[in-house]
Amino acid sequence: MENSFLQTYVSIDCVVFGFDKSQLNILLVQRDTPHSTGTEWKLPGSLIYQQEDANEGAHRVLNELTGVKTMTLRQFKSFTSPQRISNLCDVDWLEATYHNKIERLITIAYLSLIKINRKFNSVSKYKTVDWCPISELPQMPFDHNQIVKEALEEIRSWVERDPIILFELLPTKFTASELRRLYQAIHHREYDVRNFHKKITRMEYLLPLEEKQEKVSHRAARYYKFDRVMYNKRKISL
Amino acid sequence: MENSFLQTYVSIDCVVFGFDKSQLNILLVQRDTPHSTGTEWKLPGSLIYQQEDANEGAHRVLNELTGVKTMTLRQFKSFTSPQRISNLCDVDWLEATYHNKIERLITIAYLSLIKINRKFNSVSKYKTVDWCPISELPQMPFDHNQIVKEALEEIRSWVERDPIILFELLPTKFTASELRRLYQAIHHREYDVRNFHKKITRMEYLLPLEEKQEKVSHRAARYYKFDRVMYNKRKISL
Repeated sequence: MENSFLQTYVSIDCVVFGFDKSQLNILLVQRDTPHSTGTEWKLPGSLIYQQEDANEGAHRVLNELTGVKTMTLRQFKSFTSPQRISNLCDVDWLEATYHNKIERLITIAYLSLIKINRKFNSVSKYKTVDWCPISELPQMPFDHNQIVKEALEEIRSWVERDPIILFELLPTKFTASELRRLYQAIHHREYDVRNFHKKITRMEYLLPLEEKQEKVSHRAARYYKFDRVMYNKRKISL
Repeated sequence: MENSFLQTYVSIDCVVFGFDKSQLNILLVQRDTPHSTGTEWKLPGSLIYQQEDANEGAHRVLNELTGVKTMTLRQFKSFTSPQRISNLCDVDWLEATYHNKIERLITIAYLSLIKINRKFNSVSKYKTVDWCPISELPQMPFDHNQIVKEALEEIRSWVERDPIILFELLPTKFTASELRRLYQAIHHREYDVRNFHKKITRMEYLLPLEEKQEKVSHRAARYYKFDRVMYNKRKISL
């Protein structure tokens, strides 16, 4: 059987997670909809350029968007359904943006973690860049909602394998309850406060500091710090 | 900056592992080199067809190759370097095979596991399909050697998360030393026989059978069976 092939393009899309002390957020950008009917939110992304590979493309997008040079970035899945660009609005937007006829668009999705209070220095093509809590995600173009859903599953299994990534989402010093709320946000379930404290005492790579919270109405909680040296030792001994 | 885009195609490539009681093997196919200068071995793969997604493409390739309808198949990484088809032989072969001008080829790599003694019923375009021990892999076209290397890393981390996949490589009943040799092959290190036996007794999902080896020159070893029900119970309680 002879097969014909569609005019195919390959893009990268980035799901960037941040944690605002109570829930996970995702970095979204605003695009103009075709025919100037308004704007809508989507994942930051781009076609892969001629000279770059997918990793370089993902770094370029996030660098243009945030000004941040180095960030944890992990390729997690390709989305390849022929129906990805079945919506005519999406096709119009693509062709207006890239000045090419695009019949099929395959995307390689990346996952990234960043401290949410980090200052951005955007030079990208997008007007607006903003954090959106995952409980309030809008309906997005292409299969971006599905990509976020699978990124959440991916981050859960990544944390199980390698808890170190949690500390990329937390400030340098954090309280036990901030860490607990991050676990809750990622695993989407409640943790009993007392049991969670026991769990923390078993994490030898968590360093309790002398310093406590200041100017809080409740009893001031102790700060913890992540101890990378202890963490790496523990990994080797496994 | 205006960007131009190359004529891009997307393929899938499959790294199928089998275990021959002493080492890991990979399923390779033989292609004619262009200008009929001979043959060479490569990973089984295909361009993704117009109506299918990458998963369907990978299933199609393996099904044509083996006749096997259902097999564990996992997308693990996309390979996207612009240098993937810098070798002119590879370009010639691609264009002779697909009758299209191909300027850039991105591939989505899959990993699969199969019992090595399984009978195949091939209907594929390839002349020859054969198992090759990973210690004896030839130099392959494109970046296929690199893909295999990364597939091995992926299978190691997959086994750590989900040891059940080991039993897709073993016969229905197997001895402790077969299981140990499989661990050795995957983790590429020796396991002490006595320590490994202790490890086995802690795997509640391994069911020792009454049956022992027959017609062997050494002391007949006991057979074990994998107990899926126990395994699933254990997973839930984690």
